[in-house]
Amino acid sequence: MMGAMSADVKAMPGMEAMDMAVMQACMDACAACEQACTVCSMQMMDCAPACMNCADMCNTMMRSMMRMQGMTPAVMMAMLDACIAMCQMCMEECMEHAAHSEVCKMCAQSCKACMDACMDMKNMMMATA
Amino acid sequence: MMGAMSADVKAMPGMEAMDMAVMQACMDACAACEQACTVCSMQMMDCAPACMNCADMCNTMMRSMMRMQGMTPAVMMAMLDACIAMCQMCMEECMEHAAHSEVCKMCAQSCKACMDACMDMKNMMMATA
Amino acid sequence: MMGAMSADVKAMPGMEAMDMAVMQACMDACAACEQACTVCSMQMMDCAPACMNCADMCNTMMRSMMRMQGMTPAVMMAMLDACIAMCQMCMEECMEHAAHSEVCKMCAQSCKACMDACMDMKNMMMATA
Amino acid sequence: MMGAMSADVKAMPGMEAMDMAVMQACMDACAACEQACTVCSMQMMDCAPACMNCADMCNTMMRSMMRMQGMTPAVMMAMLDACIAMCQMCMEECMEHAAHSEVCKMCAQSCKACMDACMDMKNMMMATA
Repeated sequence: MMGAMSADVKAMPGMEAMDMAVMQACMDACAACEQACTVCSMQMMDCAPACMNCADMCNTMMRSMMRMQGMTPAVMMAMLDACIAMCQMCMEECMEHAAHSEVCKMCAQSCKACMDACMDMKNMMMATA
Repeated sequence: MMGAMSADVKAMPGMEAMDMAVMQACMDACAACEQACTVCSMQMMDCAPACMNCADMCNTMMRSMMRMQGMTPAVMMAMLDACIAMCQMCMEECMEHAAHSEVCKMCAQSCKACMDACMDMKNMMMATA
Repeated sequence: MMGAMSADVKAMPGMEAMDMAVMQACMDACAACEQACTVCSMQMMDCAPACMNCADMCNTMMRSMMRMQGMTPAVMMAMLDACIAMCQMCMEECMEHAAHSEVCKMCAQSCKACMDACMDMKNMMMATA
Repeated sequence: MMGAMSADVKAMPGMEAMDMAVMQACMDACAACEQACTVCSMQMMDCAPACMNCADMCNTMMRSMMRMQGMTPAVMMAMLDACIAMCQMCMEECMEHAAHSEVCKMCAQSCKACMDACMDMKNMMMATA
């Protein structure tokens, strides 16, 4: 299923020219980050609260991208900013444990990837607008 | 249970002086908005996609306020901005149907209340910082 | 908003005679349990994984009751059973810490209340069918 | 990230001999079903309420499998039953539109795959117990 959703996702008003490959990559990165954060939170380390927050934010971000009719470019931008800020904080928390925990290392990488994918979305939207 | 959670919520680093009554009001407004939006989305009117996005964003916002250890003031601010933008958009969509649908009218009111409560949080955080 | 949702919730096919007060009580108990479990999970005690599972299950249960058009009595029964099982397990975990943690004690009480409200829903549905 | 989570997931008490490949397949099927249902619900067809319920149930199911420490075999069984019942109902709703909507057809297939994967989990757990 991964990598096949954007073909069925309706465009956001005013953003019909969006590059669907960039959006698909962002949805996939959000899904992967939600999962990595959920697993990481189970270690009961210091990063757990950030991981739980990040898992929920990434799920909400992913779902919203699948419901573009219910967004405006301005709302999308604000949500991408929130997701980027959350992923960055979670990445920094998990990086502190990366030397001792493979799960934290993987989680930090997923956060980084999600943060980058959200930034690509923002750049794409600004270029399209 | 409503109205009693903030007593058990740990403060965010750097924000120990926060007014817990303001935060409790914001969590309650998010919970109410999630519910109103979920019910409203079931009407299958034009506002449904916005309502679903708003329900998810409000749930994520509420949960994050209950997990302040996993936030920084900067992340919280970005999430509040996203929640405010989402609530405002949903409110505007539902207001267009408010004359014909009591559910849309209630949903728009919940969105307005949630938006206001998130703004109160922002103002309180800026006054505390 | 609490206590006012069921008036706008559409009935499930075959269940038009349902007592909406019982359903409203169940939705409220689910919402309260999601919140108590989310706060409790932040203590990073042994019960945290059960609390996170319970928070998600209760949110899903509550939302489904607000979307009865997308349920059948059989699906509803299966979900109520799952929610009851989850709440009972979480309650038992938190009860072990209730003597030392006020938050765990409150969480166990919320789980018990949610379990009871779900059982009331089941009994009401069986009486209505 | 897909297909790599189960290696980091802790076993459930009493279920240490579980086949992690079966569980990974089930988590992937849940994730795919949540996404297909979310997109399908946006068509605003009759199946939308079932799709929204199914999306939430699948997400809760997936996350719970990533938090096995917070489950017992009995709770897991009840949740799998609920997920199976929900997926079956959503599949049947979407099958009625499959001839006219490619999205509904894909959604029905995702529901079927998730239902089957949950049944495989149940069978594996019964064989392991």
